[in-house]
Amino acid sequence: MAQPERSQGGVPRRQFLEHSVVVLASGVLAASAQRAGAFEPPETPLWMKSPGAGMSEYGQPSKYEVSVKRTGIASRPGTTGSGASRTPLEALDGMITPSGLHFERHHGGVPDIDPAKHRLLIHGMVRRPLVFTVEALMRYPRVSRINFLECSGNSGVMYNPAPPNLTAGQTHGLVSCSEWTGVPLRLLLEEAGVEPAAQWILAEGADSAAMSRSIPMAKAMDDAVLALFQNGERLRPENGYPVRLLLPGYEGNMSVKWLRRLKVVSTATMTKDETSRYTDLQADGKALMFTYPMEVKSVITRPSPGRGLSGAGLYEITGVAWSGHGTITKVEVSTDGGKTWGAAALVPPVLPRAITCFRMPWKWGGGPTVLKSRATDNTGAVQPERDKFIADHGNNAIFHYNAIQAWSVEANGEVKHVYA
Amino acid sequence: MAQPERSQGGVPRRQFLEHSVVVLASGVLAASAQRAGAFEPPETPLWMKSPGAGMSEYGQPSKYEVSVKRTGIASRPGTTGSGASRTPLEALDGMITPSGLHFERHHGGVPDIDPAKHRLLIHGMVRRPLVFTVEALMRYPRVSRINFLECSGNSGVMYNPAPPNLTAGQTHGLVSCSEWTGVPLRLLLEEAGVEPAAQWILAEGADSAAMSRSIPMAKAMDDAVLALFQNGERLRPENGYPVRLLLPGYEGNMSVKWLRRLKVVSTATMTKDETSRYTDLQADGKALMFTYPMEVKSVITRPSPGRGLSGAGLYEITGVAWSGHGTITKVEVSTDGGKTWGAAALVPPVLPRAITCFRMPWKWGGGPTVLKSRATDNTGAVQPERDKFIADHGNNAIFHYNAIQAWSVEANGEVKHVYA
Repeated sequence: MAQPERSQGGVPRRQFLEHSVVVLASGVLAASAQRAGAFEPPETPLWMKSPGAGMSEYGQPSKYEVSVKRTGIASRPGTTGSGASRTPLEALDGMITPSGLHFERHHGGVPDIDPAKHRLLIHGMVRRPLVFTVEALMRYPRVSRINFLECSGNSGVMYNPAPPNLTAGQTHGLVSCSEWTGVPLRLLLEEAGVEPAAQWILAEGADSAAMSRSIPMAKAMDDAVLALFQNGERLRPENGYPVRLLLPGYEGNMSVKWLRRLKVVSTATMTKDETSRYTDLQADGKALMFTYPMEVKSVITRPSPGRGLSGAGLYEITGVAWSGHGTITKVEVSTDGGKTWGAAALVPPVLPRAITCFRMPWKWGGGPTVLKSRATDNTGAVQPERDKFIADHGNNAIFHYNAIQAWSVEANGEVKHVYA
Repeated sequence: MAQPERSQGGVPRRQFLEHSVVVLASGVLAASAQRAGAFEPPETPLWMKSPGAGMSEYGQPSKYEVSVKRTGIASRPGTTGSGASRTPLEALDGMITPSGLHFERHHGGVPDIDPAKHRLLIHGMVRRPLVFTVEALMRYPRVSRINFLECSGNSGVMYNPAPPNLTAGQTHGLVSCSEWTGVPLRLLLEEAGVEPAAQWILAEGADSAAMSRSIPMAKAMDDAVLALFQNGERLRPENGYPVRLLLPGYEGNMSVKWLRRLKVVSTATMTKDETSRYTDLQADGKALMFTYPMEVKSVITRPSPGRGLSGAGLYEITGVAWSGHGTITKVEVSTDGGKTWGAAALVPPVLPRAITCFRMPWKWGGGPTVLKSRATDNTGAVQPERDKFIADHGNNAIFHYNAIQAWSVEANGEVKHVYA
């Protein structure tokens, strides 16, 4: 009896001509077998021969997926909790980032906060200062939103003169996307009674760095949320448990974690966190301050460095796009280094200030080439080529890098960072 | 200096009249303080006085949330892995269920599958039988969808003559919602070449129970997916790692986990799992078979048993609704036992065959009453009252219970299951 051919991930070329594009994308990937009159299925695996494990109180990933973890973990010299970890974008697929793999950026480590003892203070230019327990916050009306968070330092390494030897997650993984549920900040500010002259709010975290940023009153009254839940359950400690600020689309550090204080003030406070960092030094030596929304951006995650191709054939190009200004309206993909572009399919639901996945079939001929993706948002903003971006901004900066990402594909299928 | 009054979760009645409904819902909940000229904030907490923890490779919930776990875990006598665990709906908020809290229903435990050795066979009435490695499946084009899964036995205890003394999760927590990403089944079937007379598919899992169901070809060719990712990362073991079938809207057991075999056949196979169980015994002694889509349904999660009220005042009623037939178009809430109903707000994005959260402000006067929620979907189906449901279906059945859920609110704020 003929056994079916086992797939090695190879691409039988004979099937190329018999299918439409979509079916092609599948038809050339599987191992197919001649039909056998009396077909014998694969043998019964060991794990069917005895009962499996019981139910568990809180599930974890498969032990075979231990390599899928936060990547590029780095702390400043002499510290353990002042640094970052990154989402391994190349190993994931979908709009939602699992909370366990959400990127981290801490300035003084993750505080161990007892929610029964945590307090949130609203004071300053208000008619009545208020102090909230977490229990009190939990009683307020809530909203839910799927929003990305991106550290403004995401892809900062791409300012360097030479392309890095890193994975997609290591260069672009300071972005993650969650469903956030919490209390509209506006409700609490209205209750406190904001004075008419108050135009800013100082937001302070309960971490040892007392991470502090100035928040424009207009944003606070618009879509700012005091987030209590992330992907259905209470916030994770490294995402601000028991309560964090969430400013959709704004650079991540403004969504102050472990929120303990909101001081309503007339002008920006010029905290250490908005003067010593989180400013953008331009080519002319001047620095931009208060650059809030994260710009339109995208990156191809499949294929990407470390996740190369196994021979000529059909592949699906997959990636993620997002914009702090609004909704992704288009992602174009080039498989010839930017000479020609085709529109990728956007995966619904396409939501404002959320990660939008894109997908495009691609037939790789086997020769070296360069892949790029270019995102456009509903304000008309288009992700720039790197040359243009560096010409406009210089390369003194660390933050707000959003240029088009190029992957070189070598003839052996390897994928590398390249400036092209 | 006056210290601000700390909130005890109580409701200062004096604020009732000064706000609109929405602001009311906040204004009466916080502890407010007289404005103090030189206001002193809460003291600096201990956790701000030394650096916190460093970054981690895979995050976990706060230690203060250990009580939020799967609930109602039960295995059949003499087994450890033939049973269920339930999502603690009352502790969660949002459309997405964290993967660690997704409900479980296993018939032979969770198999420990090495993905390198797992095979998926497609055979039977096809032009060429195919065997896929997981690596091969990972190369195919993918789709992503946010869909609920509900065990057809969810809320089966509500067939009982007396209402149970259980939480919302314990009675309704065999439903969860995830973003699923995987390969459209249609692509693989087209590659195998389904014979025209083939109308069914036998789907078999690689668990020790070889869980098997008959899938109509029309569903397989419509929106069936071979799911590889759940909430962004690879499937969890208890959700079918490395690959499961996903049939949006259909009763959960048909979305066969640990999928190893799809046999294309002409008629339903009448497996043990669709004859000895998963049929619906009616009042007249006849049983319904092949009842696929899960009916329109909803439940209030806040307040709910074990999550009662702390005194008269304003609350937000929160809950979840879903329908296997399509999209939730309306959820009505009654706070007087069903005499009057008001439309709750549906939380966007409202997606087909996904959990839809609903929210409604409620001013509780402090007296005993009964809360209900009633969902409607885009086919016009409306969740029935329990009396009507039992009159129509009898109470011999275990599966497909979707009647309106009533919570009694006692004068002391306690919330209980009630038939009303």
